[in-house]
Amino acid sequence: MPQGKPEHTPDDGLTTRQRRNRPLLIVHTGPGKGKSTAAFGLALRAWNQGWPIGVFQFVKSAKWRIGEERALQTLGELGPPVTWHKMGEGWSWIKKSTSESDHAADALEGWSQIKRDLLSQTYRLLILDEFTYPINWGWIPIDDVLTTLSTRPGTQHIVITGRNAHPALLSQADLVTEMIKLKHPMDTGQKGQKGIEW
Amino acid sequence: MPQGKPEHTPDDGLTTRQRRNRPLLIVHTGPGKGKSTAAFGLALRAWNQGWPIGVFQFVKSAKWRIGEERALQTLGELGPPVTWHKMGEGWSWIKKSTSESDHAADALEGWSQIKRDLLSQTYRLLILDEFTYPINWGWIPIDDVLTTLSTRPGTQHIVITGRNAHPALLSQADLVTEMIKLKHPMDTGQKGQKGIEW
Repeated sequence: MPQGKPEHTPDDGLTTRQRRNRPLLIVHTGPGKGKSTAAFGLALRAWNQGWPIGVFQFVKSAKWRIGEERALQTLGELGPPVTWHKMGEGWSWIKKSTSESDHAADALEGWSQIKRDLLSQTYRLLILDEFTYPINWGWIPIDDVLTTLSTRPGTQHIVITGRNAHPALLSQADLVTEMIKLKHPMDTGQKGQKGIEW
Repeated sequence: MPQGKPEHTPDDGLTTRQRRNRPLLIVHTGPGKGKSTAAFGLALRAWNQGWPIGVFQFVKSAKWRIGEERALQTLGELGPPVTWHKMGEGWSWIKKSTSESDHAADALEGWSQIKRDLLSQTYRLLILDEFTYPINWGWIPIDDVLTTLSTRPGTQHIVITGRNAHPALLSQADLVTEMIKLKHPMDTGQKGQKGIEW
């Protein structure tokens, strides 16, 4: 845990307070477990601060976040709103069936909504869960992502999760943690279980 | 994310279901951010399953978990109980001031309570936050930890967080993720901020 003592103070013309409150682009990447759970753990801190939280789940793994979704939605009813958007079941802001839709178009539609939300500063914390995949698959242009994120207004913290984060994304990020698998029950033939994997 | 397909099935005489539901010893270690946040993210899944959750915070960093504590306590009032014990402010089950107490004795007292709770199966998920430190400092005997954890009854999942987890603990663990710091705002002189670090 950081002890609040930077090793050196940059000559950037900012006060410590200004520098401290800069919005962060956070990336959780790597092959290990904990990328998304750490993002949702961060959401607890954001909730406690009264920040509106937006979760965007990319890829069809939407089904895997049942526990986090129900818990955070419950908190959202009692405090700052938590808005949950899932690509796998069709984005919540479009009222059409997406059962036959194209995954790439779906991903791009999600990204378009994120851009709108960033412009209007809808949330203070945005979790873009498994967002590295649609970027890596070429569904969402990395240049657009980089430009949009670097020019976002106000104080909007962003957490992006997923394996193999694009090098340019890592380069632009303020905080990057790589989750490495040292050991997993799957290695000894144990499947995922409720309460742990979802 | 595991796709539910173990590479090989062990010859351990267990059914897939029995093997799947074995209690896990999980360790989040390494120098990167996300060890504790991922543990608290897991707690959201446990809460959704209706599991009683016990959190034991070791070391004086107790002050750093305000957001998680308030959010999980709020959830605990609406669902399965979440019980929060902090060494830094004196353990909740002993009603004495610990302001002058010895840290090593405090840590050992926390561990004794964990042993009692494991025996009585008070919780289904136990988070031992920053538990690696009192082990490494020799305050809590590693052999006692290993024996206690390996003989715990029932289905009690345990998550231990902290840097430099003891090799024997890693060896006994079922799931180990190492959080590696690739980048941190502290590196460019930015201090920790609310909603992100606490």
